[in-house]
Amino acid sequence: MPLRSLSVVMVMPYCKPVRRPGPQPCAPSLSASAGPGVHWPVTALNIPDLIRKKRDGESHSRADLEQLVLGYTRGEVPDYQMSAWLMAVYLRGMAEQETADLTVVMAESGDLMNLAGLERTVDKHSTGGVGDKTSLILTPMLAALGLTVAKMSGRGLAHTGGTIDKLESIPGWTSELSEEQFLRQAQEIGLALVGQSKDLAPADGKLYALRDVTATVDCLPLIASSIMSKKLASGAHTVVLDVKVGAGAFMRTLEAGQGLARAMVDIGTRAGRQVRAVLTDMDTPLGHMAGNSLEVQEALDTLRGQGPHDLTELCVALAVEALVAHGETQAGAEARARQTLQDGSALERFRAFVAAQGGNPAYVDDPTRFDVAPGRADVTAPTAGFVEKVDALAVGRAVLALGGGRERKGEAIDHGVGVELLKKPGEAVAAGEAVLRIYHREGRGLDTAQTLLDAGLSISAAAPTPEPMILGRVN
Amino acid sequence: MPLRSLSVVMVMPYCKPVRRPGPQPCAPSLSASAGPGVHWPVTALNIPDLIRKKRDGESHSRADLEQLVLGYTRGEVPDYQMSAWLMAVYLRGMAEQETADLTVVMAESGDLMNLAGLERTVDKHSTGGVGDKTSLILTPMLAALGLTVAKMSGRGLAHTGGTIDKLESIPGWTSELSEEQFLRQAQEIGLALVGQSKDLAPADGKLYALRDVTATVDCLPLIASSIMSKKLASGAHTVVLDVKVGAGAFMRTLEAGQGLARAMVDIGTRAGRQVRAVLTDMDTPLGHMAGNSLEVQEALDTLRGQGPHDLTELCVALAVEALVAHGETQAGAEARARQTLQDGSALERFRAFVAAQGGNPAYVDDPTRFDVAPGRADVTAPTAGFVEKVDALAVGRAVLALGGGRERKGEAIDHGVGVELLKKPGEAVAAGEAVLRIYHREGRGLDTAQTLLDAGLSISAAAPTPEPMILGRVN
Repeated sequence: MPLRSLSVVMVMPYCKPVRRPGPQPCAPSLSASAGPGVHWPVTALNIPDLIRKKRDGESHSRADLEQLVLGYTRGEVPDYQMSAWLMAVYLRGMAEQETADLTVVMAESGDLMNLAGLERTVDKHSTGGVGDKTSLILTPMLAALGLTVAKMSGRGLAHTGGTIDKLESIPGWTSELSEEQFLRQAQEIGLALVGQSKDLAPADGKLYALRDVTATVDCLPLIASSIMSKKLASGAHTVVLDVKVGAGAFMRTLEAGQGLARAMVDIGTRAGRQVRAVLTDMDTPLGHMAGNSLEVQEALDTLRGQGPHDLTELCVALAVEALVAHGETQAGAEARARQTLQDGSALERFRAFVAAQGGNPAYVDDPTRFDVAPGRADVTAPTAGFVEKVDALAVGRAVLALGGGRERKGEAIDHGVGVELLKKPGEAVAAGEAVLRIYHREGRGLDTAQTLLDAGLSISAAAPTPEPMILGRVN
Repeated sequence: MPLRSLSVVMVMPYCKPVRRPGPQPCAPSLSASAGPGVHWPVTALNIPDLIRKKRDGESHSRADLEQLVLGYTRGEVPDYQMSAWLMAVYLRGMAEQETADLTVVMAESGDLMNLAGLERTVDKHSTGGVGDKTSLILTPMLAALGLTVAKMSGRGLAHTGGTIDKLESIPGWTSELSEEQFLRQAQEIGLALVGQSKDLAPADGKLYALRDVTATVDCLPLIASSIMSKKLASGAHTVVLDVKVGAGAFMRTLEAGQGLARAMVDIGTRAGRQVRAVLTDMDTPLGHMAGNSLEVQEALDTLRGQGPHDLTELCVALAVEALVAHGETQAGAEARARQTLQDGSALERFRAFVAAQGGNPAYVDDPTRFDVAPGRADVTAPTAGFVEKVDALAVGRAVLALGGGRERKGEAIDHGVGVELLKKPGEAVAAGEAVLRIYHREGRGLDTAQTLLDAGLSISAAAPTPEPMILGRVN
C-alpha cells in the first residue's frame, strides 16, 4: 500500500530531506486575498507565508527560521502560528541542513556559554534513563584522561533522574557557581558542573511547552534540535551522546534511537562540533541501584573499579568516544579509560570536584555515610526460573512513588529511597527468592512501588538470551 | 514518483476518505509522560489526544468534533491547539462523514434559524464573484415559482460584492428585520432577506479568523464546512449552490470547483438537505455591470426579460436546480423559470419585496433614478481585434479602488461607482475603441482602476473560442 508507506516516510525519524513537491495541481489555487476574512497587523503578514512553505513541504532558509523562532521567543509570533508550523513540521519533516539551522537558531536565542579559554572541552548527554548514574563516573574519568568537562546538568522529572539531584545526596554539594568559579574550577580540576541556566536556549523551553500540548512532541527533527540546541549553547567542542533505547527510555525502539542519534550527530557536525553517539539498552535499569544516594554509592564503587559490569562498560565506551574524537586510537583509548578506574585517578578527580563545589569529601571516602532510607521490602520471584526482565519504566515509577523523584519542577525529593536489583536479567532465582529490594521511608509510596515492581518483573522458565549493553554507535 | 503523487492525494480537495494508517513502525514510539515537560490543567488533557488522532490520519467521531469545535467556540480550547489541529486536517484531510459531522457541529455552535413554519424553503449560495447580481434576480424568480426564500445574505469584502450592499442602493431598503417580520414576509411574499446574524454558526467565524493567519484557508473540507455550516444553520430545506470558477473566483480551476461542489453537496445530503450545485465561469464578470447601483439596474433589466445572455442563463439554470430539487422535470422547470422573466411575475415579487423592507419602489419602476456616479473614463483597445479576456479580478479590484467596495468590515461604500463592460469577450473591436467604461466620483481611485483594467484587458487577433457559462452540475 503506497499510502501507508509514504505516510511513514513523511514522519520517519531519519530527517530525510523532503523534496520540494513542485506545483500541486490538485490543490485549490486560492489567493490569500480572495476570501472573506479578518485583517491582521502588517507585521504578522509574513508568518503565514512561512507556515505555508513548510505546509507545502518546502525547506526553510536560516533567515526563515530566525524570523519564526526568534520572533516566537520574543513573543512577537503568537502560539497559534507556531503550533500550526510545528504540526506542519511534524507531518512534512525537515531536511538535514534545515534541522541544523533550526538548532543553531534555537541555541542563539539566549546566552551562549563561552568555553574558549578551556582546552579539549567535552560534554556528555544522555537521553534519560532509569538508574543512569553514568555522568557521575564518566565525567571524572574524562577529567583524569586530560579532557575538560565544564557541563550543565539537569534535575530529574517524572521517572528519570537528574545528575544534580544525585550529587545533592552529598551534604554541602551545590550546583550554584558563578561563571568565573565554574570556568576556573574546570581549568584546575578538569570538571565543573552547574545547573542549567534559564537563559540557555530559551526558544527550546518555550517550544517544548507548546509541543507538549499540541501533539507535536514525538517528531525527530524537533527532538534532535531540542537536545542539541542546549549542547551547542553550552559551548563544548566535543559532545558524547548516550542514546537510550528501550522500555525505560524516550526512544522505545533501536530504529527510533538510531534515527535520533544520526540526526543529532548530523546537527553537531554541521555546526562545527565533534559529536559521537552510543546507543545503549534501557530495557533494564543500569547497574543495580535506582534512587539518588544509592546511585552515588554505586558510582563510587565503580570509580573504585568495583562497579557492575554493564555500568562500567558503558562508562568506558563513552570515554573511548570522547578520546577518539580527540584523535586517539580505539585500542589505546580503551586501555587508558579502564586504567582511570583501576588506578584511582578518576576517583581522585571526583573527590576534588565534590570538595570544590562544597561537598563533604568524607562521603566519597566512606560511602556508608550516605543517608539511605531504613525501610526495606523485597519483591520476590513467584516461581523458580530466570529473571527475564526488570522493566526500567516500572523501576523509575517506583522510585518516583517512594518520593525519590518529582512529578513537577521544583518539588523536593527524598534522596535516601530507591530500588535495588538483587538479581539482573539472566540470573537464576528460586521460587520466593528476593529479586528486588525497596528502600522506603516509613512506608511512603510502598504499596504503589510494590505493585509497579510486581508487574515489571518477569520470570521465565528458560534462561533468556543475553542482550548486549551497547547496541550501536553513530559518528 | 510515488512521493509526489501521494503528497497530492493527502491535500487533494475531493474529501477522499483517509484510510487509517495503522501503526507506523518507523515513527518513534514515545510516551507522552516520558519526556521532560510542563504540566497543564487536567481539563485540557484530551485535546492533544484529539490532535494526535488527526495527525495520525484517523477519523474523528462526532463526539470528538463537538469537544474540539464547541470547546473552541466557548473559549475552552485555546487557539494554539486548534491551529495545530487545523494544520493536521490540512495535511491529513477529512473523510466525507467526518466533514459532514464537522459542518453540523459548526452549524449547531450558535442559533439555528427555524423555518419549519414555511413551505418549500430554498436558499442560494454563491462562492463569490465579480458583478454577480444573480441573487437579486434569482430570489424573486423562485418566489414567483412558488418557492419560499427566507435568506441571510452578506456584505461585500475586498473585490467581491455582497447582496445587502447592492440592495442598499435602493433608498430606504433595510436588511434589519425582526425574526417575526422576516418569517411573516417570507410567508406572504415568498421572499425576505436579512443580514447574517453574528450568532449564526459562530464557530465558523472564529475558525476562519484562525485559518486566515495559520495558512490553513485553502483546505477543501474546511472551505466546504465553513460555507455549509451557515447554510445548515439558516434552515432552508433546499440549497442551490453557484460555485464560481476562474480568475475572479475563490476556486481558480474547474477541478478545484468540482471538488468543492461535491464536498458541499455531500455534506448537505448527509445532513438531510437537498443540495444541488452549478459550476459557472468567473473568468469574466457576469453581465456587463460591476458596482452596486449599476448591478441593481442590470438586475432590473434582467427581471424585465432584457438582461444580458450569460446572466439570464445562469439565473434560469439555478432556478431549474431549485425546481428539480422539489420534484419538477428539467424541461418543465426551465420553461416555468424563463416565463417568470417574460411575464413580469419575478419583477412583481421583487417590487413587493423591496417595498416590504422599506425600499422606495419607484426605483424598481424607473431604474434611471439610481444615483450613478457622474464621472466617466473609458479603457480602449490598444489594437484592433477581438476582446479575448476581461479579467474579473481586475474589474473587482477596480471597483474596490473607486470606492465601491470595502477593504475592511464596516467601511462605508459608494454605491454609485463601477465598471461597465461595453464589450464582452468574443466581440470585435477597432483600435482605440472603448471596451470598458469607468463610473467614478470626482476621480477617486481612477488612476488605480485604469491601471488595473488596462492590465486586465486582452485583445487577440483571432476570435477566441467561446467558453460556456455553465461548466458543470453536481447533485
